[in-house]
Amino acid sequence: MELKDDWVAGFVDGEGCFHVSLNRHDEMTVGFQVLPEFVVVQHERERPVLMALKRFFKAGVVRSNHGDRLCLRIRKLEALRRVCDFFVRHPLKTKKNVDVRKFRSIIELMHQGRHLEREGLLEIVGIAMSMNSTQRPKLEEVKAELLRSG
Amino acid sequence: MELKDDWVAGFVDGEGCFHVSLNRHDEMTVGFQVLPEFVVVQHERERPVLMALKRFFKAGVVRSNHGDRLCLRIRKLEALRRVCDFFVRHPLKTKKNVDVRKFRSIIELMHQGRHLEREGLLEIVGIAMSMNSTQRPKLEEVKAELLRSG
Repeated sequence: MELKDDWVAGFVDGEGCFHVSLNRHDEMTVGFQVLPEFVVVQHERERPVLMALKRFFKAGVVRSNHGDRLCLRIRKLEALRRVCDFFVRHPLKTKKNVDVRKFRSIIELMHQGRHLEREGLLEIVGIAMSMNSTQRPKLEEVKAELLRSG
Repeated sequence: MELKDDWVAGFVDGEGCFHVSLNRHDEMTVGFQVLPEFVVVQHERERPVLMALKRFFKAGVVRSNHGDRLCLRIRKLEALRRVCDFFVRHPLKTKKNVDVRKFRSIIELMHQGRHLEREGLLEIVGIAMSMNSTQRPKLEEVKAELLRSG
């Protein structure tokens, strides 16, 4: 299955998700690990489409998610930089485009290693909180803890 | 907002729905009205995208659906023929493509007026039942009734 750039942009406009979570990680100096990911979830019958997307982005893992759902997940930082670059060249048409831009600024901060120190991590948490996120309460908690430790 | 053909194909692959329902309609000779529709549902914040799709297909109505959902709905037969032609030129990549082909054959039967007589309507109901439909029980009922009236 061959995918065209604009088809990928359209499909991701509908089905893609740019997500940033923070996990407690005591071995890290700042105490938290930043986990950005690009995710596309589909019914398991759509495995060929997810595999084609994986080939398209030359990255990611396709595996089963919940029940009959399959998920393409890209987590490697360098791959996520390429994904973000793609969506700069092919901007999304939905409001998801705002999330992509924020996601991209987090990826760039991580590329600069800013997530490894408190100030940078606070900046990342601030951006993540402004994204369309279900994790807001958890992020607020992380932010409060980082501010206390300052 | 300008939409490219492949973007539209990608977005509809994710978010579009090709749907055929049958309503009892006592004024019609066969007793049932066939209602095919092409639908794209989005959060109300995505009104610009739905309006752009409406302009793209030069057809349809955008209105509020449930709660914070907006819906583009195309129901006119001639417009649906154009929509189907578009997806022949730009085939969907997901299994939805199978539905589009079935949907298109229903639209063509209706274009020939076959839904106005019992045999044609039975054919349409048979195709609709083979589509990825939540309405199967209702369609079974219609089919049984049409068979009884034969």
